[in-house]
Amino acid sequence: MKKFINNVDDILVESLKGFATAHKDLVSLHLEPIFLTRKVPSMNKVALISGGGSGHEPLHTGYLGHGMLDAVCPGHVFTSPTPDQMLAAADKVNTEKGILFIVKNYAGDVMNFEMAAEMLPYEVATVLVTDDCAAGDVTAGRGVAGTIIVEKCVGSLAETGANLQACKALGDKVNQRTASMGVALSSCTVPAAGRPTFSLADNEVEMGVGIHGEAGHSRETLRSANEMAAEMLEHILSTLSPTANSEILVLVNGFGNTPLMELYLIYNSVTELLAAKGLKIARSLVGNYTTALDMAGASITLCLLDDEIKQHWDSAVHTPALRWD
Amino acid sequence: MKKFINNVDDILVESLKGFATAHKDLVSLHLEPIFLTRKVPSMNKVALISGGGSGHEPLHTGYLGHGMLDAVCPGHVFTSPTPDQMLAAADKVNTEKGILFIVKNYAGDVMNFEMAAEMLPYEVATVLVTDDCAAGDVTAGRGVAGTIIVEKCVGSLAETGANLQACKALGDKVNQRTASMGVALSSCTVPAAGRPTFSLADNEVEMGVGIHGEAGHSRETLRSANEMAAEMLEHILSTLSPTANSEILVLVNGFGNTPLMELYLIYNSVTELLAAKGLKIARSLVGNYTTALDMAGASITLCLLDDEIKQHWDSAVHTPALRWD
Repeated sequence: MKKFINNVDDILVESLKGFATAHKDLVSLHLEPIFLTRKVPSMNKVALISGGGSGHEPLHTGYLGHGMLDAVCPGHVFTSPTPDQMLAAADKVNTEKGILFIVKNYAGDVMNFEMAAEMLPYEVATVLVTDDCAAGDVTAGRGVAGTIIVEKCVGSLAETGANLQACKALGDKVNQRTASMGVALSSCTVPAAGRPTFSLADNEVEMGVGIHGEAGHSRETLRSANEMAAEMLEHILSTLSPTANSEILVLVNGFGNTPLMELYLIYNSVTELLAAKGLKIARSLVGNYTTALDMAGASITLCLLDDEIKQHWDSAVHTPALRWD
Repeated sequence: MKKFINNVDDILVESLKGFATAHKDLVSLHLEPIFLTRKVPSMNKVALISGGGSGHEPLHTGYLGHGMLDAVCPGHVFTSPTPDQMLAAADKVNTEKGILFIVKNYAGDVMNFEMAAEMLPYEVATVLVTDDCAAGDVTAGRGVAGTIIVEKCVGSLAETGANLQACKALGDKVNQRTASMGVALSSCTVPAAGRPTFSLADNEVEMGVGIHGEAGHSRETLRSANEMAAEMLEHILSTLSPTANSEILVLVNGFGNTPLMELYLIYNSVTELLAAKGLKIARSLVGNYTTALDMAGASITLCLLDDEIKQHWDSAVHTPALRWD
């Protein structure tokens, strides 16, 4: 294993210290237990808290700030955060409008956020993100890159002072209208393990891979970018069933070790494939937004827009990793 | 070789089409010859044109737009663009205020931009970027990640309507006050070659590597992030010779296959090492800004700030890869 590390046990805290120093205008780091909050809290809004295992940066810490998250609880690499982190974060950012947890659908994350919700004396709701459609049923999916669309839209609505029920309803709606599928060209290497999580032959890819290197839909032969994009889109479109002329948000997300050049090439494939189906790309985002450490590969996410989602996607956001006016 | 590719010969154009579609509010793509321009030209400013081999994305295309570049001429992967691209780009963006080429110090780039400058009927000046101090002499260095600091500052000054001489002078000054050094943990793979450019043993790193995988200062044993950062800083600081209490801009740049978690960990090392020397980090940037395809590794760049450079670094920029107000 070749990584920039001092001691494996220290990577989370050292990395978070670097992150918090680099973005000290936007975020604050709290230790014991570990959580991060936005620097300038809004006092009269639903508090949005997310979190999960580390190694997916910029998810979630990079989305702290105006228009997205109020607090983030990072676990160790690919390891769920614990309830004490969520309780401390909730105490720090709670307002009278309640707390919304945004949780990716993994057993450990779900269990620990549920436990925290039960222990908290505040009103708490949860949006469960399930956008990975590799298993064929979006409601049972893992939470992957579509998470940032949920966080962006709910973050926008929360800034308007909307109540907890409205924020949860929008999050659930965005999740239902969002589907993702990924493909890995290589494994990632978890620092504590010290070796690749899985191995692929020189001509193999893992189609439908998860963002921790979980097995996917099938192990397949490496094909052209167009063919792999077409296969991913087929699963996504059969999950979402867009009508003709549907307006779509496309996110082409890199897992870490796929150059931007290739991500834009995939996006070019997606534009041609969707145009051939009469579907309109109304918004797009291309880059490394939900990574899996150093895995080579990419995912495609589609979100079926409506006026409400489009408005909240477009609204101002000011975070380390996503910023527009 | 496992990459998202249709045909190796098509990757540049397919990738640029995807890029231009994803950022159609900011950039325009021109083919035959290939160049890109910012969407909304400013009519009364020095036109800034850069370019070089592809594979370093977001450099340079990602820096097209308000506050940075007016046109970019991308060559094929790790291959210099040709004078016809520069001539066509210059014709498109020229104003009566003249043209400034920003050129990374590689023989092919230098020769082709010089040839274009001689052929153009407009007033042309050139800033040569030489920030790589791995060879020990900043004036002879290759142009690496420091290029974006030059492009950002000169881009800012050009927006104010400053003349060509003033823009060149600022570019030269920023270059003189900027030094970089990188280390590779793995090779990159050029698509047309189909195999890694070089090989490293499991415990080896290439210290002082260039952004095309050129040999560096020395092949060394993998050490801790702190030790490698300290070695890079030693070369950089001996090149720049900052005085005590100097204000510094720090750029920790990933080469492609190093997770953001590790880049922030390196930044944490840099903050501690510079603090111990009494040097003040006044500005910072951490992320993948000048890549080398899928090479694992990172570079550290320091720029000695003064009030003028700080002002131009801070000014509004609105490009695909760098955006603030």
